[in-house]
Amino acid sequence: MFRVIDGGITVPEGFKATGKHIGIKKVKKDLALLTSSVPAKAAGAYTTSLVKAAHILWDKEITDRGGLVKGLVCVSGNANACTGKRGVQDNADMAECFAGCIGAKKDEILTAATGIIGLDMPMDLIKAGIKGAYGNLSNKREEAKNAAAGIITTDTFLKEMAVQLNVAGKTVKIGAMCKGSGMIHPNMATVLSFITTDINISHSLLKKALIYSVKETYNMISVDGATSTNDMAVIMANGLADNEEINEENEFYEEFCDALYFINEKFAQDIVHDGEGAGKFIQVNVKGAKSDADARLLAKSIVTNNLVKTAMYGEDANWGRVIAAMGASGGYFDPSRVNMSFVSEKGSVLLMAGGEPVHFDENKAADVLSERDITVDIELGDGIHSAKSWGCDLGHEYVRINGEYRSRT
Amino acid sequence: MFRVIDGGITVPEGFKATGKHIGIKKVKKDLALLTSSVPAKAAGAYTTSLVKAAHILWDKEITDRGGLVKGLVCVSGNANACTGKRGVQDNADMAECFAGCIGAKKDEILTAATGIIGLDMPMDLIKAGIKGAYGNLSNKREEAKNAAAGIITTDTFLKEMAVQLNVAGKTVKIGAMCKGSGMIHPNMATVLSFITTDINISHSLLKKALIYSVKETYNMISVDGATSTNDMAVIMANGLADNEEINEENEFYEEFCDALYFINEKFAQDIVHDGEGAGKFIQVNVKGAKSDADARLLAKSIVTNNLVKTAMYGEDANWGRVIAAMGASGGYFDPSRVNMSFVSEKGSVLLMAGGEPVHFDENKAADVLSERDITVDIELGDGIHSAKSWGCDLGHEYVRINGEYRSRT
Repeated sequence: MFRVIDGGITVPEGFKATGKHIGIKKVKKDLALLTSSVPAKAAGAYTTSLVKAAHILWDKEITDRGGLVKGLVCVSGNANACTGKRGVQDNADMAECFAGCIGAKKDEILTAATGIIGLDMPMDLIKAGIKGAYGNLSNKREEAKNAAAGIITTDTFLKEMAVQLNVAGKTVKIGAMCKGSGMIHPNMATVLSFITTDINISHSLLKKALIYSVKETYNMISVDGATSTNDMAVIMANGLADNEEINEENEFYEEFCDALYFINEKFAQDIVHDGEGAGKFIQVNVKGAKSDADARLLAKSIVTNNLVKTAMYGEDANWGRVIAAMGASGGYFDPSRVNMSFVSEKGSVLLMAGGEPVHFDENKAADVLSERDITVDIELGDGIHSAKSWGCDLGHEYVRINGEYRSRT
Repeated sequence: MFRVIDGGITVPEGFKATGKHIGIKKVKKDLALLTSSVPAKAAGAYTTSLVKAAHILWDKEITDRGGLVKGLVCVSGNANACTGKRGVQDNADMAECFAGCIGAKKDEILTAATGIIGLDMPMDLIKAGIKGAYGNLSNKREEAKNAAAGIITTDTFLKEMAVQLNVAGKTVKIGAMCKGSGMIHPNMATVLSFITTDINISHSLLKKALIYSVKETYNMISVDGATSTNDMAVIMANGLADNEEINEENEFYEEFCDALYFINEKFAQDIVHDGEGAGKFIQVNVKGAKSDADARLLAKSIVTNNLVKTAMYGEDANWGRVIAAMGASGGYFDPSRVNMSFVSEKGSVLLMAGGEPVHFDENKAADVLSERDITVDIELGDGIHSAKSWGCDLGHEYVRINGEYRSRT
């Protein structure tokens, strides 16, 4: 079994990091650097948006062909998205600059950016910043924290984690940091997730493990239903744990998957907890679906539905909005078999049984919904598949944050 | 060419209507009745939600098999949705009651309902109400208005229209009424559209004409992205205009389609204008798309995107959110060819040209967006297809209305 240990992105052998304020933002850190002492295998999961930030195209090319990587550079405050040909060139220049600092080739450097869409990158600041920062690269706890601070936009807390597990007698470590959508400044709503590990694993299984956990975690959360041009999760594995290479889906692969899933589920939940204007945290459990895809579609439709989200904000046991969201989702279920309950630390209230409405106690329901964390339990009776999703409510704070005039913030 | 004339649902030959308060709502009218003096062909377009109100299943069965109809009964205030087996029986009883009053069979009666989900129908009130109201059925202007008032929930204005056109020397008339989502009371967000006409047309072309106009009008609006369990549009054609039956897609069919499209486009726009908490009216024009489906997906993704809607509320020329919404829509376009402008009576501001950001005057943009009616013009350069969509902003009023506790309203 894996276990959580102290630390962040620099816990695995051979990884160093740093973070710094270089002037893209007014005060906060806005640069993160990460290196591996030996070339690392890398895999990525990228936004499905047709409009992709420059770094998405850059990283996807590298990870798709199985290129080995020595480092990663990430800026926050500027998304380098919708910046045309100049943005593509700026991204390559950023990679080249960091590569020059650490003695790598530019195509051994992954890049990332998050922030305002459509603004040209301040390349003088970025180049000077990288040159001024790389000397601080270290595996110290403090520098992992600095890196985690360098990637966030307006998240209200750092998102870091580390776990260790045993692979055939060798200790393997995984470090991770991510950012979410604490979107005080409009235009920023990107999920970036960076994971390091010293495990020795084949490129194809590294990719498979990442994609699996992303599908069940980051892809099952919604703060506002909008998909960013910049979303990505990348993992770098440098093999320094010296375990025999994992190249089949054996028990060690399964355990590595479990650890990755644990990290990404925690991060996904953290992102929602830290979501813009979020007052409530909503978990949906769909059980008994006919297929995996149906379970996911149904679960996600509930946390993305504005009417469900405003009802949760109003602490209103408005179960009709939940069943209506499911009905319109495109996922299959038999409406005549649905059981539905709202659950919190205050108890549970049954709202539908066998597809029929249940006459429930309004006071009890109001009491259950007065909690911050609410679970919506759906039992379908159509099959054996299940899915979880996470979201937040939609209230005045969301409107205030996102309705503010961009040029005034 | 068709022309708009005064009147509503009772303008075509042979149609009578009435509307009344029967006690489902506290004060406002909550029943509408409609009859045709001779059996009418009928066609319908129904919610795609898997969770369908009882009347949707009832009407669909009748219109799908080409059944002739003599009347329609609609209640407002109770949706008769998610009411299980009892709801199905109540709906049939409502049809049977009205059929008995007018000397028809129950399967010659279409039904409709809109209002609170999951509440049992007050059948005693409904039966007594129908029996007390049918004596007022008339083709008078006043009764058409009463019917239009009987179908609304919290729309702030009645939605009625009538047009006439010439079909091979005969005067053909079309009358219509609809309701939208002026959703002061949570759980109500249903579009109901009822159209009468005395045209003589084959059942298959009647259906085709309706589906075409619904696809391009009602299906291209969004107030909050949520699809109702009760949405429907039905048309009844009784042939009393005495034109030679239209049974091919000739010039008269085209003109009939144009008239239907005109009515439904106007109603679709009215529904958005009257949308819950709507402060702004947004029209999106997508031109130059590769296919019809792409054009529609892209246009609709913009008016349904929460970040675009809050930006409009904040009068923020946040074009990055528009392109991000398009990118995540699933519709194809080449991001490097996009031109985008925001337009209002105050002028036009170009934001993207050939996929590159344009440096625009923030003051000019703020001025353009200060208007109530805003148009987003998108030129893709990928093909010849185009689509329009309509939506509203997302502001505090929406949250206030939908976040209020259901049992308190």
